[in-house]
Amino acid sequence: MNSLIFPLFLLLVTALPAVAAEKDDCLSCHREKTPGAVRIWEGSAHAGAKVGCIACHGSDHEKIVKGEARVTAAVCGKCHKKALGEHTASRHGMGLHSGWGCTRNLGGRDKRECSFCHEEGSALPRSTVHCARFLKQSSQMGEAGCNRCHSVESSCASCHSSHATDLKIVRNPASCAKCHMGPDHPQWEMWQTTQHGTLYASQGEATGPSCQTCHMPAGSHDVTRGITTTQAGTAIAPENARTERSAMLKVCTKCHAEGFSRRELEQGDAIRDQSQALVKEAEEIIRDLYRRGLLDPMPEERPDHPLSGKKLVLDSQMLYEDTSHIERLFFKMKKYDFAKTFKGAYHQNPAYTHWYGNAELKMDLVDIKAEASRLKARKNPPAGKGQAARSVSEEVEENLRLLKREMEDGVLTPEEYARRKAQELERIR
Amino acid sequence: MNSLIFPLFLLLVTALPAVAAEKDDCLSCHREKTPGAVRIWEGSAHAGAKVGCIACHGSDHEKIVKGEARVTAAVCGKCHKKALGEHTASRHGMGLHSGWGCTRNLGGRDKRECSFCHEEGSALPRSTVHCARFLKQSSQMGEAGCNRCHSVESSCASCHSSHATDLKIVRNPASCAKCHMGPDHPQWEMWQTTQHGTLYASQGEATGPSCQTCHMPAGSHDVTRGITTTQAGTAIAPENARTERSAMLKVCTKCHAEGFSRRELEQGDAIRDQSQALVKEAEEIIRDLYRRGLLDPMPEERPDHPLSGKKLVLDSQMLYEDTSHIERLFFKMKKYDFAKTFKGAYHQNPAYTHWYGNAELKMDLVDIKAEASRLKARKNPPAGKGQAARSVSEEVEENLRLLKREMEDGVLTPEEYARRKAQELERIR
Amino acid sequence: MNSLIFPLFLLLVTALPAVAAEKDDCLSCHREKTPGAVRIWEGSAHAGAKVGCIACHGSDHEKIVKGEARVTAAVCGKCHKKALGEHTASRHGMGLHSGWGCTRNLGGRDKRECSFCHEEGSALPRSTVHCARFLKQSSQMGEAGCNRCHSVESSCASCHSSHATDLKIVRNPASCAKCHMGPDHPQWEMWQTTQHGTLYASQGEATGPSCQTCHMPAGSHDVTRGITTTQAGTAIAPENARTERSAMLKVCTKCHAEGFSRRELEQGDAIRDQSQALVKEAEEIIRDLYRRGLLDPMPEERPDHPLSGKKLVLDSQMLYEDTSHIERLFFKMKKYDFAKTFKGAYHQNPAYTHWYGNAELKMDLVDIKAEASRLKARKNPPAGKGQAARSVSEEVEENLRLLKREMEDGVLTPEEYARRKAQELERIR
Repeated sequence: MNSLIFPLFLLLVTALPAVAAEKDDCLSCHREKTPGAVRIWEGSAHAGAKVGCIACHGSDHEKIVKGEARVTAAVCGKCHKKALGEHTASRHGMGLHSGWGCTRNLGGRDKRECSFCHEEGSALPRSTVHCARFLKQSSQMGEAGCNRCHSVESSCASCHSSHATDLKIVRNPASCAKCHMGPDHPQWEMWQTTQHGTLYASQGEATGPSCQTCHMPAGSHDVTRGITTTQAGTAIAPENARTERSAMLKVCTKCHAEGFSRRELEQGDAIRDQSQALVKEAEEIIRDLYRRGLLDPMPEERPDHPLSGKKLVLDSQMLYEDTSHIERLFFKMKKYDFAKTFKGAYHQNPAYTHWYGNAELKMDLVDIKAEASRLKARKNPPAGKGQAARSVSEEVEENLRLLKREMEDGVLTPEEYARRKAQELERIR
Repeated sequence: MNSLIFPLFLLLVTALPAVAAEKDDCLSCHREKTPGAVRIWEGSAHAGAKVGCIACHGSDHEKIVKGEARVTAAVCGKCHKKALGEHTASRHGMGLHSGWGCTRNLGGRDKRECSFCHEEGSALPRSTVHCARFLKQSSQMGEAGCNRCHSVESSCASCHSSHATDLKIVRNPASCAKCHMGPDHPQWEMWQTTQHGTLYASQGEATGPSCQTCHMPAGSHDVTRGITTTQAGTAIAPENARTERSAMLKVCTKCHAEGFSRRELEQGDAIRDQSQALVKEAEEIIRDLYRRGLLDPMPEERPDHPLSGKKLVLDSQMLYEDTSHIERLFFKMKKYDFAKTFKGAYHQNPAYTHWYGNAELKMDLVDIKAEASRLKARKNPPAGKGQAARSVSEEVEENLRLLKREMEDGVLTPEEYARRKAQELERIR
Repeated sequence: MNSLIFPLFLLLVTALPAVAAEKDDCLSCHREKTPGAVRIWEGSAHAGAKVGCIACHGSDHEKIVKGEARVTAAVCGKCHKKALGEHTASRHGMGLHSGWGCTRNLGGRDKRECSFCHEEGSALPRSTVHCARFLKQSSQMGEAGCNRCHSVESSCASCHSSHATDLKIVRNPASCAKCHMGPDHPQWEMWQTTQHGTLYASQGEATGPSCQTCHMPAGSHDVTRGITTTQAGTAIAPENARTERSAMLKVCTKCHAEGFSRRELEQGDAIRDQSQALVKEAEEIIRDLYRRGLLDPMPEERPDHPLSGKKLVLDSQMLYEDTSHIERLFFKMKKYDFAKTFKGAYHQNPAYTHWYGNAELKMDLVDIKAEASRLKARKNPPAGKGQAARSVSEEVEENLRLLKREMEDGVLTPEEYARRKAQELERIR
């Protein structure tokens, strides 16, 4: 990997016509005010190449003080062109798009950010580039909880840190862990306790593959090369999947036989698809309750979904708040446990694949079925003394209402609807 | 930090009039019996300064064998005066008070411990210095589960380990992790995966700030300097908060600009207060159920709370056992998820602030509302066939009972009570 | 520990009559195809001792390519006899037995594996050697989720890795973490944050005991020496417990006084037994609901348990899928939280003993009682208007049915049954 450092230095030293090192008019104060930052910069490749404060931060001190002069990826990209190009082409390059809500109320934002979500001059959001969950947060939570990771699109410091340039930082899996951990995608945790991670712990990166070894081969910033699964956990189109699988196999076969590697990855594919089917089963249970009007509360009884209003939302814009208990069980199932199962499998981690993943997925399904049973029982409690059981005609009446909604939702074709309606009517003829 | 070691050594070497090194009457046996302990001690600064076994353990071998001759902080403080003073002034200095229950049934305890909880000669506990949760545990769980951490007040070995004196031990965040981890305050876990922790992983403590860098600047043992939040998660008094915030900013500005640092910390303040409001919302739902007599079981149907008997307890003495499902959901929300949200924000960890914190908090609220809805429905199931709906007069009757309890609880002023009572009576006039 | 390496080398160098180093007919291709594997092997003790590819992998290239020529423990044991003997005698030596289901549908398996579960020529499984949970999984999940750990019985590479032989790998707790982590037995996590683990972090294995220090003293492969608890969490027979406790105390007393060590371990015993009683209390609640026919769904309403069919299963073959909500709460309680409590205590980890363990156990009991209350209320909702309360005779009728089932289950002796039946009948005389 040492072969990486030299070209980076060359790039730094030769490609800086416009950003000559400023004199120490910043340093004279900042040695006092932020001595640690200055010390770290002084030990950096930037200092060696005479890239000073103003080159990155600009010279508008007032703006800097207000926190409005962010050092964006574009600033770094003036020198680090190849890295920025690869980064932009990867899923990291759409970090904002996938986790970003309206920035109107946030200070110091580039107006061009609006174009992530809005056509020029329109207040209507474009549905692909915003996040309903973000829109529900306070501006502080938006910054501290969402943007600290999703700003990876526009900030190289997300991984590289602000003033240090030592490549040891970004070659350490810890630099990935800042975002790639936690309930929704614990890649760092699962890597740590695989054969790969445990070899890294005792043998270092020469023998123990790190995140970077497999996902940034030869220092590439295209971190999504070789991945055959969408962010939603479904398979990408087969023709793309073939290309990406080949790319990943090139990495695996540095150490492993091709047949073994292919079988391992295909095991991941199978587990992903089997787990997806469990998620689908749970989704159908909730859709059925919705059609029967049994969710508690129903969407019309709770605050509007910021994108879809009173509609039931179970896709990637599903919320974890202002929702019903059964939907939040489904949120955990789909967003957390499904992800752990298939990511655990692709990373060869048994505890994540099985215990944190598969076992939780199946327990989620148990809980969802139990809550569905409770909601149904609440509407139709068992007949008590002196109380007639629900009559057949009442039952048929409800089923007819349900069939109608299923047709409206596109679950039944008009033909199926007609056939099943006739069956129901038969019961009370 | 090297500047710290020298004065510590000086202190050791010069301030030991009474604790001359005993001859090897201990060592001759213990080289056989506990060779590891002897070897570690031999490599320690204590051995170098001729501080032997008896200096710390005393010479009553029978008491030592029974485990009744604990090496308390007072023993260490005979030499390490400055450290003990700072420690005692910090929140660590009240470790016992906050996690300690009655020690009557525990062996080998100093009788003076009684004064943490009791006025001299009184069996009645003073409410500020004991823990209802501790009182519910077996003596073994009290020792292994509670006191192993809460003994930090009286035992320097909590952090420093028993025989080794290498300061590398206590300058490593791992030494904090023994207690500052887990569901109620995962500071270690959240530090690990911030920019600070990940820089530490690849660059060490010179560039990557550790727990100690920010919370024990210049080796101070006053670990709570700069903290503006009480243990209950509320803001401390504004005048104190200003002083503490200044203290923390002095630490931050070693590397970061003051404006940036202040904004980051104020973001934490805002998230703490917003999250507190969610907790309050949930608390009100439970208090309402309590007044309506709908908790399952109600406090009068379960074992006495060790401090408050049959009263509903939702404050920091709230239990996680012998309680209702909705209260234990609230326990998780308040004790675990609220703490993760605001501590995650102050430590700049997005996954803890958002996923482990905020998202869980909001899902807790969904679950608490769902359980409240279930409990209400159970009392008033939907009217079945041949069964009249609840009459208006029945409803008014219940509401009047509730309003009365709300007035008694101080939720309604007598005036509000009179007004709302009149409104209810209007309905059946 | 250095004393270990030499005999291992000797063994390698001297005991290889049959496995002479093959010429580089493998290497000439594999230097191209799997350069990393070749490089790691070249740096290994095997290469030094001229143990080449064929010695372990055999020479049937077609079988190797299909993944059917696994390097089993028997292959390694040809040279590493002592290690294999100790391994086989330990609980690791029954890794397959405890986590293994039917391998009929899995590719590349040794036919002799059938004998783990079947008498020669019989399709009936023997109850001690298979796992109901495994039988419910897809073959992919069986491989990736179950067998990746449970293959420890037959694969030394589970811990040692495939081509590297550096003993640093297996002396690092990370090598244990691959399996000994996660919700069911987080030994790695709990070790990390004890005094032992945190000393290891700053001082290394000389001062900070690792998994290996206590569980593999002097390099023994009998990893279960000194353990007094069965895999189900109950105490082993007293005479065995005394022997094992002595073995563990020999390890502890390398550093700690015997009295202290004994008290610590006995604290673990007490916490194990107290926690077991909580699990038993929950189990009884579920058995009672089962007898009353109140589980939702009842075993007869759900897919067959793969070993026990329609019977209620709450022992170690209990499933986490196709079950009722209250049973899956019990699964979490027994399999996860009980294990964390007592393993946390034996490992001296306060957060695992108390917060992750004991507090969860007690909250589980709250949740299980709440669900039991819900299930009972659903069957017998409070009497509504125009609806008579359940009559005494109805209640007696149900109780008589229940008593009968309790006698059938062996909960009541025939005498007790007769006595309690008479009491019930007295109520309606």
